[in-house]
Amino acid sequence: MKALDPGMVGGELALLRRVRLRAGVVEAPGGVRLGIGDDCALLRVRPDEEVAVTTDLSIAGRHFRLGWHPPEAVGHRALARGLSDLAAMGARPLAAFLSLGLPRELTAAPGRRKASAPWVDRFYDGLLALAKAHKTPLAGGDLAESPIAVADIVLVGAVPRGTALLRSGAKAGDLLYVTGALGGAAAGLARLANLAKSADSARPRPPRISAKMASIMAPHLYPQPRIAQGLWLRRRGLASAALDLSDGLSTDLAHLCEESGVAAEVYADALPIHPNASIEQALNGGEDYELLFSAPPSARLPRSISGVPITKIGRITRLRAGEPVVTLVTGCVAAPLEARGWEHFS
Amino acid sequence: MKALDPGMVGGELALLRRVRLRAGVVEAPGGVRLGIGDDCALLRVRPDEEVAVTTDLSIAGRHFRLGWHPPEAVGHRALARGLSDLAAMGARPLAAFLSLGLPRELTAAPGRRKASAPWVDRFYDGLLALAKAHKTPLAGGDLAESPIAVADIVLVGAVPRGTALLRSGAKAGDLLYVTGALGGAAAGLARLANLAKSADSARPRPPRISAKMASIMAPHLYPQPRIAQGLWLRRRGLASAALDLSDGLSTDLAHLCEESGVAAEVYADALPIHPNASIEQALNGGEDYELLFSAPPSARLPRSISGVPITKIGRITRLRAGEPVVTLVTGCVAAPLEARGWEHFS
Repeated sequence: MKALDPGMVGGELALLRRVRLRAGVVEAPGGVRLGIGDDCALLRVRPDEEVAVTTDLSIAGRHFRLGWHPPEAVGHRALARGLSDLAAMGARPLAAFLSLGLPRELTAAPGRRKASAPWVDRFYDGLLALAKAHKTPLAGGDLAESPIAVADIVLVGAVPRGTALLRSGAKAGDLLYVTGALGGAAAGLARLANLAKSADSARPRPPRISAKMASIMAPHLYPQPRIAQGLWLRRRGLASAALDLSDGLSTDLAHLCEESGVAAEVYADALPIHPNASIEQALNGGEDYELLFSAPPSARLPRSISGVPITKIGRITRLRAGEPVVTLVTGCVAAPLEARGWEHFS
Repeated sequence: MKALDPGMVGGELALLRRVRLRAGVVEAPGGVRLGIGDDCALLRVRPDEEVAVTTDLSIAGRHFRLGWHPPEAVGHRALARGLSDLAAMGARPLAAFLSLGLPRELTAAPGRRKASAPWVDRFYDGLLALAKAHKTPLAGGDLAESPIAVADIVLVGAVPRGTALLRSGAKAGDLLYVTGALGGAAAGLARLANLAKSADSARPRPPRISAKMASIMAPHLYPQPRIAQGLWLRRRGLASAALDLSDGLSTDLAHLCEESGVAAEVYADALPIHPNASIEQALNGGEDYELLFSAPPSARLPRSISGVPITKIGRITRLRAGEPVVTLVTGCVAAPLEARGWEHFS
């Protein structure tokens, strides 16, 4: 992050100074030698570690809606996407970077209520709370004025050489597992969409959310990246392949199969469907950010890792010409499971 | 970069496959162990190295204009901004990552001329040509549909521990140097703006540029990041502080002074003003991407490094209350030099 973006004037400069101050507050486990303020940040990894890097772009109207999502949730979700990618590799987070483009009005206090915080401050509240929970300092980024809100989150992590959980290691005979429950994010989004559509549409602000509704929407608004579970799996060396469920089980499992050159079958009765969700949402709903992984039958997986349940949902099979890559087995009926990855608001 | 972005359909998926194929072509010096296709890329640094990370956001209408800039130049400039940040630290590039948001029409062939390449292909042509020149593989990123074109470039580099060129090391008595010439980018932009405004304004495509005009605009359209010069300075240990001139000399020198807690004076007669530029453009024009650095008087700097001239332009002085941070000395007249960093199209 530059000390001063050429496109910035008073307000944005003040904002950058606030960010720099607040970003420094996250306690880092020593990976960041130089944070915001120079041409680059400097990070340290251990001599036997590799560096894991991922970027995820969030665009207003596509990945979130200003009229639907509280700013805190937009910040949380942006960081959660990146952390979840690290979790899927079994990497420990070293630092986050954020490139943020915002319309001017989102950097100022909302019109009629001068006392309330600007959108951008509440966005950082959400992002930095999750960063703190995962001891991940915000070490840099960029800031610019933009006609629409865009946030690109970059996560840098570290993983001992040659031990990262890849998508490409699944073998026929391996068993398939997921962490947590599926479909909760899609169910939460469906409720949020209903609520937002029934609220005053002339007011482009998120609707008020009751406590009960907040708990239904939590898997969508505040998904929890499975960093601890990814680290556990990598340290034990039990998983043969892993990825995070960002696009939906049907789509992400097809990716795992494609990268590993295998096929898979999923047992519908075994799926840990979220209590608020349908099986459709569990199979095709995106953004649960649970981990999907394979492990050889000899691997002994616990019922939970760091408090999050682990469920066996299927197995890896050989890829055969003319047969579906992913099969859904319901009772004694087997049918192809097509990739119906959830499309963000499109 | 995910194998499939949830918001992507046929065309974008095909695009991602093309990018993956082309990105693999850049010969990397061995830093990338795993590129596009998994949840994260995996990079290797040497045991005694630190990791340098920088992100730079480019937004249509703010950092570039679709009706002004050839797509190749937009791609080149996006990567050049990131590489220049690595150069300013004396880091060697390991890998680049690109998060790209594009309106659908920029991913298809232009309407009337089906044979011509889509905007996005020409954007990658420009970006990957510069990446190849600096042996920097494109190792990942993200891709999404967006109402406006946005490109966030992330550069990851490596630098031996404790040797990075920082902004904060300048001391009173040090001399000030720049690489190359100043103001050429601002002069090129001024010409481009004139040409674009006089062209058919109903046609939102860049104007045709003659060979002579192309050479005048080159410092703006195709700036050269000073990677080799940054590496040379870092290896010799001669520079006490350094940064890249992205915002303009008057603004960037103020940053260097602020981070080092010093003041500076610049000799107007010594400035290596680009032949096409005015002194105003040399002082306040942005995006030259030359290196500005300080070195103790005992340091013996060559006249050029890897073919790029090195010019002494001033000296570092003590910061005194009530006196200007940066002073411009013209003949025997000294006057405060105010930071008038160039604002992108604002």
